[in-house]
Amino acid sequence: MPRIFKSVDISKEEKELRKDYFDRHSPNVICKDRAKRGEKFKVKVKLGDEYPHPDETGHFIEYVQLWNRETLLADVRYGAGTLGNKAGHIEVDFYIVPQNSMNLSAMALCSNHGLWQSDPKEVQVTD
Amino acid sequence: MPRIFKSVDISKEEKELRKDYFDRHSPNVICKDRAKRGEKFKVKVKLGDEYPHPDETGHFIEYVQLWNRETLLADVRYGAGTLGNKAGHIEVDFYIVPQNSMNLSAMALCSNHGLWQSDPKEVQVTD
Amino acid sequence: MPRIFKSVDISKEEKELRKDYFDRHSPNVICKDRAKRGEKFKVKVKLGDEYPHPDETGHFIEYVQLWNRETLLADVRYGAGTLGNKAGHIEVDFYIVPQNSMNLSAMALCSNHGLWQSDPKEVQVTD
Amino acid sequence: MPRIFKSVDISKEEKELRKDYFDRHSPNVICKDRAKRGEKFKVKVKLGDEYPHPDETGHFIEYVQLWNRETLLADVRYGAGTLGNKAGHIEVDFYIVPQNSMNLSAMALCSNHGLWQSDPKEVQVTD
Repeated sequence: MPRIFKSVDISKEEKELRKDYFDRHSPNVICKDRAKRGEKFKVKVKLGDEYPHPDETGHFIEYVQLWNRETLLADVRYGAGTLGNKAGHIEVDFYIVPQNSMNLSAMALCSNHGLWQSDPKEVQVTD
Repeated sequence: MPRIFKSVDISKEEKELRKDYFDRHSPNVICKDRAKRGEKFKVKVKLGDEYPHPDETGHFIEYVQLWNRETLLADVRYGAGTLGNKAGHIEVDFYIVPQNSMNLSAMALCSNHGLWQSDPKEVQVTD
Repeated sequence: MPRIFKSVDISKEEKELRKDYFDRHSPNVICKDRAKRGEKFKVKVKLGDEYPHPDETGHFIEYVQLWNRETLLADVRYGAGTLGNKAGHIEVDFYIVPQNSMNLSAMALCSNHGLWQSDPKEVQVTD
Repeated sequence: MPRIFKSVDISKEEKELRKDYFDRHSPNVICKDRAKRGEKFKVKVKLGDEYPHPDETGHFIEYVQLWNRETLLADVRYGAGTLGNKAGHIEVDFYIVPQNSMNLSAMALCSNHGLWQSDPKEVQVTD
């Protein structure tokens, strides 16, 4: 069954040794720490920070999901080639309208290296 | 079989009479007219201009797709409630890396009112 | 914008000349003509009849959708390789529970050759 | 971040107490124990054994995925109402062509109760 790779489960040594591998597969949830209830709120999900992931027919990012706790908010599927069939950072901006404080996370699936999970991102929602 | 609603197929009179209906279901591809080959290029898809679409469990936007001619670049699935279970504009920013000039279009599926297609958007890609 | 290839739009001569091309891309909705209201009903969607479609990383069937008129019932995404990276017939059985007579159709997306639509299939639903 | 509910993680007492809850959310991979290399092989995924899951606009099964170890083979999305807006067993038959022995598993997402994983199913593939 699919394992889920999470940053917290990987030792510091392992991370240093395979820094590019972990970096290029890890989704990051990038948004403000606070949102206004009922107002449009931008959430960027970006894969990798330093190291871009390949985008080849046999090796590419198949999907990126944005979750709020147990609820799937949005799910993007990519064909190989969206990044011009070369290495690049998968990046997508969602616009959501929060009603309550959120615990966001992202998941990303590499066609060759499985399912990866971001660190959680807390967002306080106030009036 | 699913009809596809396109702006060009609808008469001017019909559009005036049901302006809100057409506006809220129509996807728009919003990006620059020109891109640099091999460089990151932002493409926004937004549903509706004046009139926001409901986001209720029984009536919401199920998916938005971004196409370049016959090729599907990206496909976003939404659960009902992404917009806080109220009316709002579905909006998503994709980042692609074009190699050749593109003819972009978007498709959107409403859970109650079928499949809608944007006007095509030409993008010239140069070095 | 994506054209949709439909059997009815293609001339007889064209079909004869490129018989394998049309056959391997065309989805077929295969089910009984009649269903009992509120009872489980099997619907097979199969791509191609004589000629199987390739399943290679650069050329494969990306998705198959089952529609009832304007309503999307189910939507299957495939990774390249589901058929062992060789030619084969994409085939999937859905189980639905109809309440009213249906006009079913299927759509299929080839990563290289665009979007294809089946002939419609009428299903009478009675008590 | 989304927890993943797995049968093995849940105590026997808990399972007895909430038998219907666990049963109706748990995907099952149903197929033969052995397959012939390069030949079509049927894999059924069915949710629940005794207890059917609701299929209402606010509470339904959003997707079912079939995995072979870290590789996603197929991913079905459902709209609410595929089962006629009433309780029923989500069921889908995939046809794959295995090349090597497989460790299959299924994941299912309930719109209200998160992500559920099946027990793994070993399939020996021989000539």
